[in-house]
Amino acid sequence: MNAIEELIRTIAKLPGIGRKSAARAAYFLLNTSPGYLTELSSQIANIQQRIRPCKICGNYTDSPECGICSDPGRDRSVLCVTEQPRDIATIEHTREYNGLFHAIMGVLNPIEGIGPEQLNIGSLLTRIRENDIKEVIIATNPTVEGDTTALYLLKILKDHDLNITRLASGIPVGGDLEYSDSVTLAKSLRGRIKLTDEF
Amino acid sequence: MNAIEELIRTIAKLPGIGRKSAARAAYFLLNTSPGYLTELSSQIANIQQRIRPCKICGNYTDSPECGICSDPGRDRSVLCVTEQPRDIATIEHTREYNGLFHAIMGVLNPIEGIGPEQLNIGSLLTRIRENDIKEVIIATNPTVEGDTTALYLLKILKDHDLNITRLASGIPVGGDLEYSDSVTLAKSLRGRIKLTDEF
Repeated sequence: MNAIEELIRTIAKLPGIGRKSAARAAYFLLNTSPGYLTELSSQIANIQQRIRPCKICGNYTDSPECGICSDPGRDRSVLCVTEQPRDIATIEHTREYNGLFHAIMGVLNPIEGIGPEQLNIGSLLTRIRENDIKEVIIATNPTVEGDTTALYLLKILKDHDLNITRLASGIPVGGDLEYSDSVTLAKSLRGRIKLTDEF
Repeated sequence: MNAIEELIRTIAKLPGIGRKSAARAAYFLLNTSPGYLTELSSQIANIQQRIRPCKICGNYTDSPECGICSDPGRDRSVLCVTEQPRDIATIEHTREYNGLFHAIMGVLNPIEGIGPEQLNIGSLLTRIRENDIKEVIIATNPTVEGDTTALYLLKILKDHDLNITRLASGIPVGGDLEYSDSVTLAKSLRGRIKLTDEF
């Protein structure tokens, strides 16, 4: 096996990258500028040293506190709870949210032995207790585990004086009723919202 | 911009990898084994030093002669002419061909100032003159430039005692007449083959 084949196989181990994309990338690397090669290889080699979880919210950061937790312009009364730190980046990308985050680092999954103790839920409760939080938006995925986790969080948070919300499920924008599965369609009916001029 | 965002943007410069795939790969790298990180980064960093063109056919190789040119089991009377070395790997992948290759490193393109002198055509003629080649299969792409190059090669080779062939164009296997463009369909009509039991 020569070096090109080796590189193709190594690249193809990345998620979502098949053999053809890996080959295309490898041939590109073979002919690209040495500067780009150095940049890419050193960024890959060092990523795990450079990135650490934010000590407050768990977001990926290269400083002790992430840019969101240390930003004085964010609304500190709203906390959005996500499964993973990468969900924080996805939500930030919408530019629709200006509060803080908390990544609990997973979902409840009794079969795999993941209970509340295995997640960052203790630190979530401490944050809610010690800060003036008015709303908690639960942004776990709309899956069985994500829903279970959301219900668990609702149960342990409902005695606090908090507005607890969950991301809406429904038909994706640009989607088509005809191709919607009936579970999603049922959720979008149950979660229907009043049409106003602002919508 | 933090290190994750930096890595995502660097990965997204690879061909065929959009921002979402790049983000997925970056988050995977953040959580993968350090062994894989080292493997991937060092293979990327060293690929251009490890791989050189084969001095006979131009194929990518990590030895002076590529595995195909130095394989005594290959049929040395057939030469397949490709545009790029990566096309050699693509054809090898079919396991349908057991001859030798010659990558001419591009196509004729008068607009970009690429004439026969800029391509590895001189070395192709020398190889044909000095070896007992019986057939030349022209495997340039079915594009305007690829066709022009094929016709040019036909012109300069036709006085040699050679069988000169070209890869068939037509409807892809599993394709559908309805979705075929008419140029491809016309080519597959003109290039129609006799049905036999062997087919």
